[in-house]
Amino acid sequence: MTDGNIVFAEYGKTAKLLHGNSILDAAKKVDIEISAVCGGHGLCGKCRVVVKEGSQNLEPVSHLETMSLSREELAAGYRLACSTLLNHEGTIVVEVPPESRVEQQRLLVAGIETPVSRHPSIKKLLIHLSKSSIENVKSDAEILLEGLSNQGQPTARIGYDALIRLPTALREGDWSVTVALRDDREIIGVQPGDTTNASYGLAVDVGSTKVAAYLLDLNEGKVVATASTPNPQIPYGEDIISRVLYASMSEKNLKQLQGVIIASINKLLLDTCKSAGVNVSEVYDAVLVGNTVMHHIFLGINPRFVALSPYPPAISSSVSVRAKDIGLRINPAANVYVPPNVAGFVGADAVADVLATELYKSKQLSIMIDVGTNTEIVLGNDQRTISCSAASGPAFEGAHIEFGMRAEPGAIENVYIDPSNLEPGFKTVGDARPRGICGSGIVDAVAAMLKSGIINNFGLINTKLNSRRIQKEVDRVPQYVLSYKEENDVQHDIAVTQLDVQEIQLAKAAIYSGAAILMKHLHVEPREIQKVFLAGAFGTYVDPQSAVIIGMYPDVPLERVQFVGNAAGSGARMALLSREVRDNSAMIAHRIGYVELAADPSFQREFTEALQLPHKDLKRFPTVAQLIKRRE
Amino acid sequence: MTDGNIVFAEYGKTAKLLHGNSILDAAKKVDIEISAVCGGHGLCGKCRVVVKEGSQNLEPVSHLETMSLSREELAAGYRLACSTLLNHEGTIVVEVPPESRVEQQRLLVAGIETPVSRHPSIKKLLIHLSKSSIENVKSDAEILLEGLSNQGQPTARIGYDALIRLPTALREGDWSVTVALRDDREIIGVQPGDTTNASYGLAVDVGSTKVAAYLLDLNEGKVVATASTPNPQIPYGEDIISRVLYASMSEKNLKQLQGVIIASINKLLLDTCKSAGVNVSEVYDAVLVGNTVMHHIFLGINPRFVALSPYPPAISSSVSVRAKDIGLRINPAANVYVPPNVAGFVGADAVADVLATELYKSKQLSIMIDVGTNTEIVLGNDQRTISCSAASGPAFEGAHIEFGMRAEPGAIENVYIDPSNLEPGFKTVGDARPRGICGSGIVDAVAAMLKSGIINNFGLINTKLNSRRIQKEVDRVPQYVLSYKEENDVQHDIAVTQLDVQEIQLAKAAIYSGAAILMKHLHVEPREIQKVFLAGAFGTYVDPQSAVIIGMYPDVPLERVQFVGNAAGSGARMALLSREVRDNSAMIAHRIGYVELAADPSFQREFTEALQLPHKDLKRFPTVAQLIKRRE
Repeated sequence: MTDGNIVFAEYGKTAKLLHGNSILDAAKKVDIEISAVCGGHGLCGKCRVVVKEGSQNLEPVSHLETMSLSREELAAGYRLACSTLLNHEGTIVVEVPPESRVEQQRLLVAGIETPVSRHPSIKKLLIHLSKSSIENVKSDAEILLEGLSNQGQPTARIGYDALIRLPTALREGDWSVTVALRDDREIIGVQPGDTTNASYGLAVDVGSTKVAAYLLDLNEGKVVATASTPNPQIPYGEDIISRVLYASMSEKNLKQLQGVIIASINKLLLDTCKSAGVNVSEVYDAVLVGNTVMHHIFLGINPRFVALSPYPPAISSSVSVRAKDIGLRINPAANVYVPPNVAGFVGADAVADVLATELYKSKQLSIMIDVGTNTEIVLGNDQRTISCSAASGPAFEGAHIEFGMRAEPGAIENVYIDPSNLEPGFKTVGDARPRGICGSGIVDAVAAMLKSGIINNFGLINTKLNSRRIQKEVDRVPQYVLSYKEENDVQHDIAVTQLDVQEIQLAKAAIYSGAAILMKHLHVEPREIQKVFLAGAFGTYVDPQSAVIIGMYPDVPLERVQFVGNAAGSGARMALLSREVRDNSAMIAHRIGYVELAADPSFQREFTEALQLPHKDLKRFPTVAQLIKRRE
Repeated sequence: MTDGNIVFAEYGKTAKLLHGNSILDAAKKVDIEISAVCGGHGLCGKCRVVVKEGSQNLEPVSHLETMSLSREELAAGYRLACSTLLNHEGTIVVEVPPESRVEQQRLLVAGIETPVSRHPSIKKLLIHLSKSSIENVKSDAEILLEGLSNQGQPTARIGYDALIRLPTALREGDWSVTVALRDDREIIGVQPGDTTNASYGLAVDVGSTKVAAYLLDLNEGKVVATASTPNPQIPYGEDIISRVLYASMSEKNLKQLQGVIIASINKLLLDTCKSAGVNVSEVYDAVLVGNTVMHHIFLGINPRFVALSPYPPAISSSVSVRAKDIGLRINPAANVYVPPNVAGFVGADAVADVLATELYKSKQLSIMIDVGTNTEIVLGNDQRTISCSAASGPAFEGAHIEFGMRAEPGAIENVYIDPSNLEPGFKTVGDARPRGICGSGIVDAVAAMLKSGIINNFGLINTKLNSRRIQKEVDRVPQYVLSYKEENDVQHDIAVTQLDVQEIQLAKAAIYSGAAILMKHLHVEPREIQKVFLAGAFGTYVDPQSAVIIGMYPDVPLERVQFVGNAAGSGARMALLSREVRDNSAMIAHRIGYVELAADPSFQREFTEALQLPHKDLKRFPTVAQLIKRRE
């Protein structure tokens, strides 16, 4: 018997690896859960791990693995955990990449954490002062400013809200007070005694579909609570344009849309503050991001002209506005910072994406794709950056999909199909009985249907295949059943319909053609792209391989793809923690070029070609072409 | 018959002066009304004029005139218009000093007009812009800022209220808009088309008794409407300290006092806007002045500590606050500027007084006395300036006086008493039938009673004199009747009681002793004072001679005394018209020294000596001593 040791470095765990056992088995023993939808049979290809050391002690790459992994991935040490067995005694060091981690998936939805050096706009300072004497009477403000000056803050001025609290605070604190200082410039709050430990900020990503809020402890630089809610504007118009039309109809409508979104942010504020035990008046700063239309509406700016050619935003620089001016119920003297917009359809959220991915800092050419109803795409590096917005619709969020749903318990989030018998396997959120399909599930399903030949490159379901799961006509269209009603809680079959596949084709074609036009503008080929950042609300972590199989983004080696979750929220949190990040955002917005896709002469052709799966021009998708070919 | 020509230069009028006619007669012919309470008999001494040219053509100074006019006044060309007759044919040029003008009196209450070079905080600019093209999309804000930059305003930023109006305004105005720019820095408003002609500001003097508002056209630099109202806080406490106590009791009380004062300012705003045909949203700037307690209350700052030793104000520098933060209903984005405070009892109103009198600019030593419930006194010149506050009470405003009233029609505003028979003559506001006595009337009355021997230097009424007007005991005190009930509309006698005289003594002693202590601090004698500025709400124009006779201010030649009316309001208007004046106010407040009278060891003695009429030490009042002596 040959035994080995396997080290899971990121988890700080080591397991015994017995002869004949797989890496997946060893991981289970030390409670590391690795995604494997097919149950460890080497079929789904989702249990990818990277062997960093000791590969010589493992059995050679199996045929199953060559079918799931590209040459580049194999060269980089990628293996399937279920298929990799010990061969010689020794130590193996393994990395579990984010996309293979099960426990991490929920957290990753919150977006990547790009480290920033903490330098928030808000600084709390405890100052000990001396009161006036009758011989030398000074005003309260004078005493405070002198005290601050002695602590190296000579340029501060007292804001109105702090001023009206000052006389009482000084006496209640017996001349020791804590001031909340904004940008080393304005005193926005003053409290008796030492309250320096209570300093919070709120970062909010206002998506057209979902609003996500993060309460941060500004002293620690850490998230202390998060909450999210569907965008309450949806009843006024599912897509952005409908909401623009509604808001443009009257001042009252605009106020109404602004009112509901601010109310829902206030609700998230209260929820996060309650769960973290924080008083809302201790929240001294906020950063809001959103696409240009969301930006205009939450600021109360008429978004009408954003939707009319040439689609100018009201403002492209950052906006700083007092919380009480927009009705946000954090400390009323607090400032709300909104990063700049690039264009009418590349808003503050895209700038936040760029902040989070740090694409603008890198020498490597990267592409950032923030998938949503409107998908913002940014291509570039530290030299040149260019952006566009693709009208991709809400399909990737599970909307307009027959059995689509949000990533709630029971949502099918990962799918594989056994090519030998066309039987599916899937994983649901919370491992609950299936109720529907979320965004990542539908991408997986379409990719698996393509790989297994259930659909062809035009997306058409092959009803001639011999499988009871392929139904010729349900509501006049064919479909592929993932879960029979006997197997689920919803009393009907859960299937992917022909129309669902078409929705996904339309959506991914919008995105890919946008990316293609940006590449054309920068004169670059897909293989030159060193990094693909996939952001956005797919519900859960989308499988990067499935996404490339359907042709959603340029075909690059899989290890170059990083799913960054809600990167706009990450960027908002970074701007909350760092004044330098805010400065960078101004620079980014100024530097990013914008391409109006509708005005690009090649858009129509690019879009039409991208409707095929993965693309009409298979030369653009060499890896996918090879994968599909292997299955045939 | 010898005829002459008399020129009233300030009026631009010339009259024929017939032999045997007086200057008063000639003035009447050309509708120039000169104050003469005694009807032109040379008794009241109120028809003073200054002969600038041609005195050789007039009869010599009469005995009556030497009784009313000081040596210095006679040397300066002062005559009594009623007693000055033509002697030789020729031209005489006469100046009617402000205190002798009847028609001007009401206007003078509004305060002196010190010329300022117009440079308001608010500037309106018309800009013609070009809209974005699809080839070069710019945000609306970017287009506006570029347009402003092209007009020499490169540093402007867009305020939130302007931003939310910008997209619509640009299109409604077909890319021609008018911006309201504050301090060349912030765009606070944007309107379609050319509205540059509509730019207004509101200056408000918040007195503890009266609130006066002035609506100014900022383009013209002129007052277009004025309005005033009693301070609505009076029911919460007549004097300042009562109001401080009330406001200190709870947050709710403070909000209540702030609420009523802001509501009354809003009412004055609406009244002035209505009468001038101005939209309140076109009022882009405001300056509020008031004593430190009023300042704190209208800003919503707890005034409690201002009333507790060492009486520190919450802030001594100027305050700039947005109109909507304090509920002022001018343009909500407008700024409200409040000049600095010097000390707990020398507030922004005193700084405004100093601005209006320009005392701080002059090489001459001047004293400014702003008479009110608290009387602010400032002594100094361009080298050194010192201030104090005297608790004079409201007697000079007609309060705490048995038959006191505001300067409404029927208020006795000027009084003289014929020394030969102790019969009074008086003039009422609007020449209506008498209803009571206003502030200037009571000062006049007490001075006349002293001059005619009805009261002695202790203020005691001499009940042994032979006059039916002197009544020994009415409500247990003696009094002197000005108007019998048969002669008036109020169904009772209108008299000056012994208690009234005492009130005036207390009030004037507080003021004089404050002035005396300031003089002591600067080591100056009364005769070194080149200018006395008398400001404040006496109802109408107080007679400077009467005021000095009762010993209210240092005895200086009468031509050095200038009644400046509501100088605080004048200073507020100046600050509204000029950014330089605002800069000066900061310098003034910083430079003015403050003397806490209660802490001065000589205060008690000074006060006690000043209780006598005019003063225990007659050497301090040589002119008055001489006047009283002449009458005896």
